Amino acid sequence: MSEKREMLYEGKAKQIFLTDNPEEVVVKFKDDATAFNAQKRGSFDRKGEMNNAITTLIFEYLKEKGVETHFIKQLNDREQLVRKVEIIPLEMVVRNYAAGSMAQRLGVEEGIKSPVPIFDICYKKDELGDPLINDYHAIFLGAATKEELDEMYALTGKINQLLIELFDKMNIILVDFKIELGKTSDGKIILADEISPDTCRLWDKDTMKKLDKDRFRRDLGEVTEAYVEIYERLKTALNK
Amino acid sequence: MSEKREMLYEGKAKQIFLTDNPEEVVVKFKDDATAFNAQKRGSFDRKGEMNNAITTLIFEYLKEKGVETHFIKQLNDREQLVRKVEIIPLEMVVRNYAAGSMAQRLGVEEGIKSPVPIFDICYKKDELGDPLINDYHAIFLGAATKEELDEMYALTGKINQLLIELFDKMNIILVDFKIELGKTSDGKIILADEISPDTCRLWDKDTMKKLDKDRFRRDLGEVTEAYVEIYERLKTALNK
Repeated sequence: MSEKREMLYEGKAKQIFLTDNPEEVVVKFKDDATAFNAQKRGSFDRKGEMNNAITTLIFEYLKEKGVETHFIKQLNDREQLVRKVEIIPLEMVVRNYAAGSMAQRLGVEEGIKSPVPIFDICYKKDELGDPLINDYHAIFLGAATKEELDEMYALTGKINQLLIELFDKMNIILVDFKIELGKTSDGKIILADEISPDTCRLWDKDTMKKLDKDRFRRDLGEVTEAYVEIYERLKTALNK
Repeated sequence: MSEKREMLYEGKAKQIFLTDNPEEVVVKFKDDATAFNAQKRGSFDRKGEMNNAITTLIFEYLKEKGVETHFIKQLNDREQLVRKVEIIPLEMVVRNYAAGSMAQRLGVEEGIKSPVPIFDICYKKDELGDPLINDYHAIFLGAATKEELDEMYALTGKINQLLIELFDKMNIILVDFKIELGKTSDGKIILADEISPDTCRLWDKDTMKKLDKDRFRRDLGEVTEAYVEIYERLKTALNK
């Protein structure tokens, strides 16, 4: 069993700790929330706990469906043990409906369904505000090769399909989400980071109520309640 | 001979006039210059004249090399007759070196050469600031189909190669440029708009002096002189 050692990295919503096993790290989910490139900050009771539990259930589900992830096991309410990977500095975003920054950028209304999934890639660089880029830029930056990008889009598209099916059972529309991928020490590209209401837009199918981080971004209230709701529906859908 | 009638459209640097031939319009080049989504404005003696002359020479050169353009003939110092096309609302940008908005977006220095041409597409929409988008967005917006985009990239890449060769003869580095493409009444995609120091970044190979609209954007002075310099070198390179 890997023993937790010093902190390797602190992000906006998570901390990463080394363990005595160089191939494994501990992820600790914080209650902190940030938005708009950390210009807006908050903290929500039980958010870290919920994101840990939700990511655990979703990563286990994806593993069952053949998607390789960094997840090893949940350690406690706030922590999970994961494979250490080198995070590829690109946020892979998939959009099934127009919303958020894409709706603003293109000047279209939120909620328009796209006939096919829309993929965005953003360059993970806080000081630049994680800008939208394209494949040519990613290759120019050395963030990924063309072949890696092809593999990353295919993996992201597969995850989108599996998540649409899962959230559909929960009576939820998967509007969009972002994932981060990482390279293992043997060069394989696998799913890393988290999948939670912090990283997805999730709308109730009947009421269109937002059950995700937009409740914080847009001051809609009931942030914790939304995350708990997603966790409860997820447990039911997965018979956990 | 098409006779000029009422104005169809006024842009930041050009006016378009109908003629008595529904398939042809007159483009009139203005001396006005705008930058940063028209937040900066200026006017430069002879700029319109130079852009008319430069675009004429470049479009004639490209036609000789097999690129179909909207250009029919130069009418006078400021005007040219062109085929009427439906402008596709995407700016096709090619970058051989990092500069301008791309260098800012990616946080890299200006002047880094890319091993391969970098293509950007921007959505032509003043009120949105002509944002960078990707192929998925363009298709979602209905601006172009996947097949049209493939054709547009191929055409833009071909034009880039021909322009690199031409500017090389002028002892000039073609850093980047943008073009606009249009659809003819029979659905063909051809080069439209202009190619001039307003739409290219052009650096002298020996001195690295900027000979383009950045002289206006960055208040470097000698704007007209730079445009005249490009015109003179172009005439020499093309034996005109």
